[in-house]
Amino acid sequence: MKLGDHAIRNGELISPKEAVLPVTQREVQSNFSVYEALRIIEKKVVHLPEHLQRLKESAREIRLEHSFSDQMIASSIGKLIETDCITEATMRILIVGGPEPVLFITASPILSYPPSMYRDGVFCTVYEGERFMPECKTSNLLLNYIALEDSKRRGGFEALLLDRNGCIREGTRSNFYGFRDQILYTAPLDVVLDGITRQSVLKAAAEIGIKVAEKALRYSELKECDEVFISSTSMSAMPVRQVEDIVFSSDHQRTLRLSEIVRNRELDAKV
Amino acid sequence: MKLGDHAIRNGELISPKEAVLPVTQREVQSNFSVYEALRIIEKKVVHLPEHLQRLKESAREIRLEHSFSDQMIASSIGKLIETDCITEATMRILIVGGPEPVLFITASPILSYPPSMYRDGVFCTVYEGERFMPECKTSNLLLNYIALEDSKRRGGFEALLLDRNGCIREGTRSNFYGFRDQILYTAPLDVVLDGITRQSVLKAAAEIGIKVAEKALRYSELKECDEVFISSTSMSAMPVRQVEDIVFSSDHQRTLRLSEIVRNRELDAKV
Repeated sequence: MKLGDHAIRNGELISPKEAVLPVTQREVQSNFSVYEALRIIEKKVVHLPEHLQRLKESAREIRLEHSFSDQMIASSIGKLIETDCITEATMRILIVGGPEPVLFITASPILSYPPSMYRDGVFCTVYEGERFMPECKTSNLLLNYIALEDSKRRGGFEALLLDRNGCIREGTRSNFYGFRDQILYTAPLDVVLDGITRQSVLKAAAEIGIKVAEKALRYSELKECDEVFISSTSMSAMPVRQVEDIVFSSDHQRTLRLSEIVRNRELDAKV
Repeated sequence: MKLGDHAIRNGELISPKEAVLPVTQREVQSNFSVYEALRIIEKKVVHLPEHLQRLKESAREIRLEHSFSDQMIASSIGKLIETDCITEATMRILIVGGPEPVLFITASPILSYPPSMYRDGVFCTVYEGERFMPECKTSNLLLNYIALEDSKRRGGFEALLLDRNGCIREGTRSNFYGFRDQILYTAPLDVVLDGITRQSVLKAAAEIGIKVAEKALRYSELKECDEVFISSTSMSAMPVRQVEDIVFSSDHQRTLRLSEIVRNRELDAKV
């Protein structure tokens, strides 16, 4: 057995072909679901308690009631890893609400990015829009999809979402950070997703003496930043070389140092 | 054969059990899809050209490219009506985007409401939130779902969405209208869905000499209204007796007159 041979539905092994949802179900039609994306490294799950905690909070926030316990989800993940002899993977947990909530766990090849991206930094575009309930990881993702497609068409790697006040809150699949006057700025938790990697980045920053301000940068302030990056479970901390026409001259040293600490900590945070 | 025995995928008849979407597809995960809900009466489709037109516009607006022509969709609907001997139904067209766009057409019992609702009017609640791309009928519906569930928990029939300026734009599955000083107010098309029934209501209003202003009413102005209603394909014009704690004394005569004209016109607009 190998990665992709199985998936999980409600705790049971199924063929990935059976990991489907009916188009006639109201909860499917209305994105009434929550999810998490996890990294599996060396047969272990990285930051599992944090992901399970956030999954619970997202569900509670949108009042999605279900009876899938942390223990049941964790053992389902373990079953999938064991059955398909998974060493490395990106794993997705999805809970769809409704009269009969359903849990899916699916595995795909681990998402990783070439070293050149970390060396050179990536190009980000900007898209105007505010996520609905940004603190919840729900399937309500059309804004993220459209903004990212717009970015890709223009050669971008990520789209940064600009709010009504001209502030950059986060990327479509990442948190966003900028160094200005030696202070690391990132948007506060009431307007963005509480990224697991964001938690690690801020912890790492504190450890190496970087001062942090949880305050969203205005787009107009970006030109005053001397180093900018984004973060996510799959990226860790990813340097940004350019946002629209603003080019950063940085050699990304602080970002790469944070990325290294975050990745090293993951090795200790596997269960 | 009877209603519900079949569905359509990409023009072909399938079992409704096969009308499913993979949870691993990015477009499914991100609600990159558009839809329409139609009424079938006396084996005919009501306002089909208008629905097909809106479906096309929604897809174009979110840049969902597909090759399903109006003619192909219309003949698929016809095939489903004929095969399952459908007289009356609510039919749903769904197009999911991506590298291989997929079209589903599913039929369910026609949605209708008891005469008592039209006589007494319904109770609506209010929910703060703005839809993303409100002019497009996409599957990005979590706000609508959550607002409507909140309403149901409080005994409501519909939730009216309140924007950042304190204006009522529309309901979660309806357009919203209020009479004030003999003028019929409803939100303009740049902030709401261009409801097919909204088009009919405004046409009917013009015919019977009601002055219309396409301007969203503020929530605080509601108490100055003497008659309020909502509209949708399945409701036609539905009287509202109360919004939160604001009770309207109206006997709903204007609303019921509009509803009657709209429903009568539907009988002429079947193809």
